[in-house]
Amino acid sequence: MSQNILFIMYDQLRFDYLSCAGHPHLDTPNFDRVAAKGVRFTNAYVQSPVCGASRMCFYTGRYASSHGAQWNNFPLRVGELTMGDHLREQGMDCWLIGKTHMKADAKGMARLGLTADSTIGARQAECGFDTWIRDDGIWGCGPDGFYDKRRSPYNEYLKKKGYPSENPWADFANAGVNDDNEMASGWMFKNADKPANIREEDSETPWLTREAIAFIKQAKGPWCAHVSYIKPHWPYIVPAPYHDMYGANDVSTAMRDDVERHDPHPVFEAYMANKLGQAFQREDVRQKVIPAYMGLIKQCDDQLGVLLDYLEESGQMDSTVIVLTSDHGDYLGDHWMDEKELFHEPSVKVPMIISDPSTKSNATRNTNCDALVESIDLVATFVEMAGGNVPAHIIEGCSLLPLLHGETVDWRDYVISEYDYSVTPQALTLGLEPRDCRLFMVFDGRFKLMHAEGGFRPMLFDLATDPEEFHDLAKDDAHQSDIERLYGHLADWGRRMSQRVTTSEDDIKAMRGTSARLGVLPFLVDGSEVPDELTEKYRGPAPANYLET
Amino acid sequence: MSQNILFIMYDQLRFDYLSCAGHPHLDTPNFDRVAAKGVRFTNAYVQSPVCGASRMCFYTGRYASSHGAQWNNFPLRVGELTMGDHLREQGMDCWLIGKTHMKADAKGMARLGLTADSTIGARQAECGFDTWIRDDGIWGCGPDGFYDKRRSPYNEYLKKKGYPSENPWADFANAGVNDDNEMASGWMFKNADKPANIREEDSETPWLTREAIAFIKQAKGPWCAHVSYIKPHWPYIVPAPYHDMYGANDVSTAMRDDVERHDPHPVFEAYMANKLGQAFQREDVRQKVIPAYMGLIKQCDDQLGVLLDYLEESGQMDSTVIVLTSDHGDYLGDHWMDEKELFHEPSVKVPMIISDPSTKSNATRNTNCDALVESIDLVATFVEMAGGNVPAHIIEGCSLLPLLHGETVDWRDYVISEYDYSVTPQALTLGLEPRDCRLFMVFDGRFKLMHAEGGFRPMLFDLATDPEEFHDLAKDDAHQSDIERLYGHLADWGRRMSQRVTTSEDDIKAMRGTSARLGVLPFLVDGSEVPDELTEKYRGPAPANYLET
Repeated sequence: MSQNILFIMYDQLRFDYLSCAGHPHLDTPNFDRVAAKGVRFTNAYVQSPVCGASRMCFYTGRYASSHGAQWNNFPLRVGELTMGDHLREQGMDCWLIGKTHMKADAKGMARLGLTADSTIGARQAECGFDTWIRDDGIWGCGPDGFYDKRRSPYNEYLKKKGYPSENPWADFANAGVNDDNEMASGWMFKNADKPANIREEDSETPWLTREAIAFIKQAKGPWCAHVSYIKPHWPYIVPAPYHDMYGANDVSTAMRDDVERHDPHPVFEAYMANKLGQAFQREDVRQKVIPAYMGLIKQCDDQLGVLLDYLEESGQMDSTVIVLTSDHGDYLGDHWMDEKELFHEPSVKVPMIISDPSTKSNATRNTNCDALVESIDLVATFVEMAGGNVPAHIIEGCSLLPLLHGETVDWRDYVISEYDYSVTPQALTLGLEPRDCRLFMVFDGRFKLMHAEGGFRPMLFDLATDPEEFHDLAKDDAHQSDIERLYGHLADWGRRMSQRVTTSEDDIKAMRGTSARLGVLPFLVDGSEVPDELTEKYRGPAPANYLET
Repeated sequence: MSQNILFIMYDQLRFDYLSCAGHPHLDTPNFDRVAAKGVRFTNAYVQSPVCGASRMCFYTGRYASSHGAQWNNFPLRVGELTMGDHLREQGMDCWLIGKTHMKADAKGMARLGLTADSTIGARQAECGFDTWIRDDGIWGCGPDGFYDKRRSPYNEYLKKKGYPSENPWADFANAGVNDDNEMASGWMFKNADKPANIREEDSETPWLTREAIAFIKQAKGPWCAHVSYIKPHWPYIVPAPYHDMYGANDVSTAMRDDVERHDPHPVFEAYMANKLGQAFQREDVRQKVIPAYMGLIKQCDDQLGVLLDYLEESGQMDSTVIVLTSDHGDYLGDHWMDEKELFHEPSVKVPMIISDPSTKSNATRNTNCDALVESIDLVATFVEMAGGNVPAHIIEGCSLLPLLHGETVDWRDYVISEYDYSVTPQALTLGLEPRDCRLFMVFDGRFKLMHAEGGFRPMLFDLATDPEEFHDLAKDDAHQSDIERLYGHLADWGRRMSQRVTTSEDDIKAMRGTSARLGVLPFLVDGSEVPDELTEKYRGPAPANYLET
């Protein structure tokens, strides 16, 4: 029986905010239900801890430096192959329901004469997906207009449901009402404890779940469906009853230490000092926001339950691979930080749960796997699940199938993540040119190195002795050999073969030795070096003598 | 007055086989004439010492690992920008007359619905050039057919002129006649001293020169014309009177030393041991071939004179930038090697002469410049000459204009070259997988490091104490610090920002700080952090209360 793939992504979901990952106060039975059927990867890292860049890594199976869309709204170059391209080659459709944060390469498309009104052009414009519904979920609007210029199916839905606003996403789904009957925007943390001014069923997560079910209902397999929720991403506000399910008592103590602020790395210092970091250094902010964040996750879990129930009722559970993950985490005040962006565990590590119903994966059900997993591994996994061979000259990730099958495999020794902060305020704080605003993480399972372009020293953490990542060992010289070893990994990675995308290993092997049989014979002294048939066309009577003419 | 650019490339022309470069026996007055008008760059290196890969670097202005066409006939990925794309953006046409060795990305073009019968498709298929005439010049034919499946304008020309053969390139232009009135193929070195069986005017170099003049005659400026000769590339045979202009007395002593064969680097050893290397280790081969090679160069020089005379007679000399270079050199038996491929000077260093008639370049006429120049610098130079700014997020080379103007500039500290030998017999000798068959050179003007993937030790030469590159200093441990320093350069280079091709430095600067004005305000505690106008859309009376509905 051919399998479908339900590839569910949450946005900004921390790896440790699930009960199966040990959260002390948050119960997520539906995430746990998938984990019980499959494997939870406990060391899964994104290749860039920011929405757009991370997703382009997930979708292309390539590092950020390889696909080049290194930050939000840096267009993905035209022609870059994605999950959709690879799966269609295996006869599997690949559909989008939700967010991608992909910006099309409009200049590149125009240069190649492609328009979004053709199938080819539409796929180029939509990251290789066929689009059931696309909604990137951030419908902020300010004096210069909307952040996202596309149409918003979600806002259209709300308007159709009668929400009286030009931007009901902002005015209802992401705002409450204060005591003076005024809009209490979810952008402001002080409002995070209010219920969003919307019927729960109309909020983003249930809406997208219904779209996912509607898609599955009509879909002909084999399909891959990328169900991509905006939540629990900010604005931090959630409808009733989730808004007051959690309170200050459920908020974990911030994982931070004064030692982090002593002689910090300049890039880390700039991040701690920004408005977001400063806000989340306040306990009142954490105690308002984190319960809302937990409520958003709880709602995601409930809606996951709806989806799982639908799969079971419709008899599709045993033919559907389920993948649960996120594009990055959320500092939530840990390390004096908020948001994502740097490489501490709360930011760069993500949940990664895969349930594969095929019998080959029986041995690993309800287990954890601590192998070093990269987000780019998913495309490779999906290609193998769809029956193909991974085109390793294009996809840089490794299929997780052997791990799901419980096989012993030779696995990678380190993971890489990258971050380009050239657009951020920190670039200005540090006075850097864009190309110097690049950070690289190398993590070997114990030591985590951050290299920063621009002439800065590195950062180093030893997660065996310092799992909280408080002590930057690169401040002194005692760990030079570990630093050098990790820099060695980074140098190896820097020389990786990432752009030979038109020519596979097999193509190369097939080319070997062909040129002599095509008459290219530069290695001849007198012809005796090769079989006669290779020189046959170059022998015989002179066809005519033109020397004297 | 707007300038045109005459970008002339010879194939396999060694840097030191010109009289202006000090060759003791070869007089090349026309190369010297251009050098006297301009600058001869004495340290110009190609980014890959093999035709196809080197040319893709020249044409894209990007390293081989960046554009991915790392060997002959590895297709250049669709959408990769080239010289033609960049120059047309500046209003300058860019035409091809001769060879590119570019293989189109047929799969990529099909995926994007592009066909070579549209202007867009034709440029994709022809490396971004508009094609006056394309002829790659290697019309070898064996039991499996032609090496090059395209039509050959040169063979068509010969047939029209009456040469009675299906492949007059092979049977006339590249073959002589022996004493038994049999075809004496130029593929066989024993025939290299015979005159090619063709009227000199019909041989490749004069034919292409006439095409270049015909192009210029009708061209409307501003134009860039890539006049790209196949010669002095093998087959080593040349028509009269060039076939006996030089003899054994004109052959320089092979630059090789027994020490090179003691405990050689395994990759070097594999190359020395191949058929080509072995052939060129024979003095009788060198004494036959090198005079023919010199004759081919002499013919190139004479034809350059024809072209220069035409420019002068037609009054275009003062409005035409002239660039003379090659895609790589030729070992000719030096270092027990033949052909190109490795990184010794005879292979990786090329002639690079630029005459810029603009008055700004007056200060440097008839001078040499020893700055470390890369082939990828030419596109950058041409873009600036055409009046544009170099798109540094795409083009990795640096404009040479400041050097031509005699300005003091902060210049690069090292050059990089790469070589992918995955298709060659040496890959099989060494038993390597394709992705391990990659070599990298780092040269800082004194020390030259070769790094080889696949677990080999490096090679190191000190050109200050050992300009002949006989003594591989990496055989012992005495030069560890130099090796580490050069590996540091290679690591820096490996982290270069090469794929962010959709987003320029200026694009990034323009994006900074825009999101708040587009309504994205994740850093608010209560709204007081920003001007009122940014939160205006998120305030006011609640539009309706949906909590109870």
